[in-house]
Amino acid sequence: MLRAAVIGASGYAGAELVRILTGHSRVSLSVVTSRQYAGVAYDSIYPALSGVVGLNCDDNDPATVCDNSDVVFLALPHKVSMGMVPALLDAGKRVVDLSADFRFKSRDAYEAHYQPHSCAHLMERSVYGLCERYGSQVVSADLIGNPGCYPTSVLLPLLPLIEEKLVDPATIIADCKSGVSGAGRGASQTTHFCHVNESFKAYKVGGHRHTPEIEEQLSRCAGVPVKITFVPHLVPMTRGMESTVYATLSPGVDDGRIRQCLESAYRGTPFIRLMPRGRFPDTLHVRGTNFCDIGWVVDPGSGRLILMSVIDNLVKGAAGQAVQNMNLMFGFDETTGLDGVAYPL
Amino acid sequence: MLRAAVIGASGYAGAELVRILTGHSRVSLSVVTSRQYAGVAYDSIYPALSGVVGLNCDDNDPATVCDNSDVVFLALPHKVSMGMVPALLDAGKRVVDLSADFRFKSRDAYEAHYQPHSCAHLMERSVYGLCERYGSQVVSADLIGNPGCYPTSVLLPLLPLIEEKLVDPATIIADCKSGVSGAGRGASQTTHFCHVNESFKAYKVGGHRHTPEIEEQLSRCAGVPVKITFVPHLVPMTRGMESTVYATLSPGVDDGRIRQCLESAYRGTPFIRLMPRGRFPDTLHVRGTNFCDIGWVVDPGSGRLILMSVIDNLVKGAAGQAVQNMNLMFGFDETTGLDGVAYPL
Amino acid sequence: MLRAAVIGASGYAGAELVRILTGHSRVSLSVVTSRQYAGVAYDSIYPALSGVVGLNCDDNDPATVCDNSDVVFLALPHKVSMGMVPALLDAGKRVVDLSADFRFKSRDAYEAHYQPHSCAHLMERSVYGLCERYGSQVVSADLIGNPGCYPTSVLLPLLPLIEEKLVDPATIIADCKSGVSGAGRGASQTTHFCHVNESFKAYKVGGHRHTPEIEEQLSRCAGVPVKITFVPHLVPMTRGMESTVYATLSPGVDDGRIRQCLESAYRGTPFIRLMPRGRFPDTLHVRGTNFCDIGWVVDPGSGRLILMSVIDNLVKGAAGQAVQNMNLMFGFDETTGLDGVAYPL
Amino acid sequence: MLRAAVIGASGYAGAELVRILTGHSRVSLSVVTSRQYAGVAYDSIYPALSGVVGLNCDDNDPATVCDNSDVVFLALPHKVSMGMVPALLDAGKRVVDLSADFRFKSRDAYEAHYQPHSCAHLMERSVYGLCERYGSQVVSADLIGNPGCYPTSVLLPLLPLIEEKLVDPATIIADCKSGVSGAGRGASQTTHFCHVNESFKAYKVGGHRHTPEIEEQLSRCAGVPVKITFVPHLVPMTRGMESTVYATLSPGVDDGRIRQCLESAYRGTPFIRLMPRGRFPDTLHVRGTNFCDIGWVVDPGSGRLILMSVIDNLVKGAAGQAVQNMNLMFGFDETTGLDGVAYPL
Repeated sequence: MLRAAVIGASGYAGAELVRILTGHSRVSLSVVTSRQYAGVAYDSIYPALSGVVGLNCDDNDPATVCDNSDVVFLALPHKVSMGMVPALLDAGKRVVDLSADFRFKSRDAYEAHYQPHSCAHLMERSVYGLCERYGSQVVSADLIGNPGCYPTSVLLPLLPLIEEKLVDPATIIADCKSGVSGAGRGASQTTHFCHVNESFKAYKVGGHRHTPEIEEQLSRCAGVPVKITFVPHLVPMTRGMESTVYATLSPGVDDGRIRQCLESAYRGTPFIRLMPRGRFPDTLHVRGTNFCDIGWVVDPGSGRLILMSVIDNLVKGAAGQAVQNMNLMFGFDETTGLDGVAYPL
Repeated sequence: MLRAAVIGASGYAGAELVRILTGHSRVSLSVVTSRQYAGVAYDSIYPALSGVVGLNCDDNDPATVCDNSDVVFLALPHKVSMGMVPALLDAGKRVVDLSADFRFKSRDAYEAHYQPHSCAHLMERSVYGLCERYGSQVVSADLIGNPGCYPTSVLLPLLPLIEEKLVDPATIIADCKSGVSGAGRGASQTTHFCHVNESFKAYKVGGHRHTPEIEEQLSRCAGVPVKITFVPHLVPMTRGMESTVYATLSPGVDDGRIRQCLESAYRGTPFIRLMPRGRFPDTLHVRGTNFCDIGWVVDPGSGRLILMSVIDNLVKGAAGQAVQNMNLMFGFDETTGLDGVAYPL
Repeated sequence: MLRAAVIGASGYAGAELVRILTGHSRVSLSVVTSRQYAGVAYDSIYPALSGVVGLNCDDNDPATVCDNSDVVFLALPHKVSMGMVPALLDAGKRVVDLSADFRFKSRDAYEAHYQPHSCAHLMERSVYGLCERYGSQVVSADLIGNPGCYPTSVLLPLLPLIEEKLVDPATIIADCKSGVSGAGRGASQTTHFCHVNESFKAYKVGGHRHTPEIEEQLSRCAGVPVKITFVPHLVPMTRGMESTVYATLSPGVDDGRIRQCLESAYRGTPFIRLMPRGRFPDTLHVRGTNFCDIGWVVDPGSGRLILMSVIDNLVKGAAGQAVQNMNLMFGFDETTGLDGVAYPL
Repeated sequence: MLRAAVIGASGYAGAELVRILTGHSRVSLSVVTSRQYAGVAYDSIYPALSGVVGLNCDDNDPATVCDNSDVVFLALPHKVSMGMVPALLDAGKRVVDLSADFRFKSRDAYEAHYQPHSCAHLMERSVYGLCERYGSQVVSADLIGNPGCYPTSVLLPLLPLIEEKLVDPATIIADCKSGVSGAGRGASQTTHFCHVNESFKAYKVGGHRHTPEIEEQLSRCAGVPVKITFVPHLVPMTRGMESTVYATLSPGVDDGRIRQCLESAYRGTPFIRLMPRGRFPDTLHVRGTNFCDIGWVVDPGSGRLILMSVIDNLVKGAAGQAVQNMNLMFGFDETTGLDGVAYPL
């Protein structure tokens, strides 16, 4: 059994890693850490796991972590993560980092939107863990920058079309909606039930830090710099993310060509489900799973392409994709631990 | 006191009309009708109104309605409405119709998306009841086509900008989100709690009948035919509608020019609230009110304009705007009956 | 116009007072205070009130409050309230206190469950503001201890039956359920959307401080000491409170006698609605209103009486009842400012 | 692999059976039936299962079912079920029936609350499938009457205490709360999102058909006829059930004795989790699992025992317990297919 550590296990992404790894047939969850809850029984933080997870939280001590793990998942805030990664790599651990610290190739882009990078030499070594696109590099990576939730939901429907030049990359607009778990476990007015219930709103309009992450990936794929318009919204639900993405079709491209491209790109991938014509994806149908469901319409009036994708922001948008990366890195079947059947409701 | 009748009072828009008119100081609610509930006490359908509304439902009989009312609100399905309107007008009643039957000037557009029109000669006579734009015509109208909820939320932020040619009308994309009450009172899988809760999804993509209504109004304002891309989504909440609208700015237009235009257009209007820079509208803040809150950002990356508006789909998107039209028609203060203070939460 | 001050206006009860008083025809809201938000525009805390409430928050300074108000509502935490009340009374103000500090007659009971009382001599002078029972004393009071939400919902159905000795006071069990706004505006894990959504649970079982408040009132009415079993639960909704109360009927008492008693007790009261046989109260039907709906069944199997009541915890359970008290104190119609029509949905 | 059929697979309990059986390592789901959806791909009814469940719905034909299954789950309405069971038993199938038709031993009790029984001779042969209590009989049964959701949640905490005579069976009151999925998949005003959201209410007070089911089991255990008071309530959430049960302690019984009794009764059972002192169960923590969490308090004021239990009404309250019964019947580990880790949130 591979020994896995989850660093920052008290947050939502960490908790979801704990859930998935606990049910993973090739992995033994050996360490969970939390600075806030060091010494505390993990199931007292998440009573749903009572009788299932018996570990106590350790402090975030790299030495302890290294002694007791083969693979390390970091579910830490940006900046904290890059402080730990070098020691883990030096100790020969393979690392999946869920923060933004190792998602960028461009140090300038990272530093413009986050902060100075303390180990920029590792940025190039890291692999952007969007498995359906970079799976072949993931296999041999020792450091994964696990994609953000919004980037995952926007890139999966778009990248194949950009690559085949079926849409004009200058026209991309991503209108995205996330459940509240995306805001994390911290209590605030933003996450107070009474402020979320019966509320729908855009936030961080024109300034969300997932924009440069999406743009770097689109630019890499398009071969030219791409700027997009991206607006995130908050939905009164716990889990789920929907992205409706708009783009102008290249001349001569029609609905059939779009289907052909997406089917070809995702043939054989276990987690992408393309919707039949006339059906649109629903966050409820991917809740708790690693699926990304994709639908689309060529708008009869304007001729624009309308792409829709849904994921569970905590699974394919975070912990599930992280485990999918681990599966690829260690040669397990890609779906191991990720094949739980979705709740029908 | 003006005597008001609500035809089709058992549906949600009808019920909201009943609520508002019951609290209106210049109006006496004299007739409520429902084919399904004829003879039934109205408060047995909506027990919230027990002890407040004492009427029984009548059948939809035009003669009875005419004998007992001065103004008639029709909250009927499309097509049923146009069957009743001529008799009401012949009897000298002033009519506010909440269906789509009298919203269009173009018979072709109406018939292409609905059905043959049985009294097309009234289409021109009717006034499109978007009060902030057509208020001066509403004053003397005897037939109002009360705007759809999506059109209201999309047109209010856009029309002043279109009129002053600040945005390119060929680039408009409206990504809209509605609470479940927009689907009406009918029970179906779509409105079942277990299918809505934790669900977010687009629906009727590329085919919603509010598209031609929005396009006719935009075209009228722009002076050229306008086609837009419009995608409605369903949000797990009862009331509320948010529209995020994207458009390319005309050359030389900046954020300040947008503010100037909107402030000028809506100065002195009681129901439009423009958000300060950096604040974005939230459906929770207009719940139960006739307000439309509007915010915007010029996207720093792409340069596109991002407009956001929120309304309560049942109030400014239906019953509230209908009462606002009546207020204008009868010379009441525009806010009479619509000045209830919003719940802070 | 009577000038009213709301002290502690940033909390939920305070905000609801602001909403109701803003729509009150006999009152001018003259002062709102908040230590946390002193100097801040009130509508920036509650944007729903933008354009409606133009006040800035003052600090909680008694002198300023006294200079600018005739009646003072205190929506402060327990203990803070009793520090301000003497100065307000000395200045001749009439005071409605929403904390627990002046609800008790028994100093021992108060101090056993809260803390030492700093002005115990005022406890006897204060009137317990359950209007339907103590209205005649409220009229001439200068200090009201506004009832807790749970006590209001439990006492209204029970007191008339206790008084007429129709139930055995030793057998009372109150199983109560509250929306999340009852937990207040403070952000915590308890009020985090992701912990409330899809969650139902009991809390503070055997130890909630509303127990002694209910027991003092029941004992006063029964003429003997009464102990009850009271269990509060948290419901995933913003507003609303339901209490299901169980008691053994006195010998010979039947359903008809219960109806007779409640109808007699509440004849002519504007806010109590007794349900017809076979209908049960629903929190949705009192949302935003000062109503208390009461239903009951004599259980065919066990013969026990099952009483059900619903209120909006923020209105009849807090701010609405406080305004009702003020109306009585100043000779206004009891329903002034409280006659807003409920939303049908 | 054991071949399993789910009859009535389009309802919620049926769908949950499909979910659980699809992930069951010893079972192959071979047949799903639905009269309404005969011939339809199952995953078009429940798109969450797209790519996971490949079956089409058959009609409810016993011969087809018998040819293709070893064990049959019936998720049919009451009465329909008893029409199919004899044929299945005659064909040698083992049957788990989720309707009420085979839960009762007393024909009189069944017929008083349901309808005439068409195969009453099978009522005695059937085993009441409350696994923690009747597991030893389940092992050899060929017909299981799978318990109702409310009975499961009420009986699990109560039965050990009744058996050891720690509480007075004449004093039992069960105040129970259920998520909306308990009302089934049928669309109605009751399940309409807009009527459930922000609503909490009691229903079927004094007349719910789970009362006689609970009473038969309690009577059997107590050795004397037991009548209880049972009130179900509807909670605005999809899944989950909480029961707060009140009873008078027998003389001399204290909190320690209650703990001892429950710990002894449930030692070694995999699905009962007893809460530590001062912690109360929460439906969120058992969502999607077969757990029943039980907590309790001896009320310091009244001395009454307050028991609280939570289950997922669709899992331990229906499909999960049905699979647990199957596991026992076929000698599988009791937790097979039921060991999915709960979502931490």
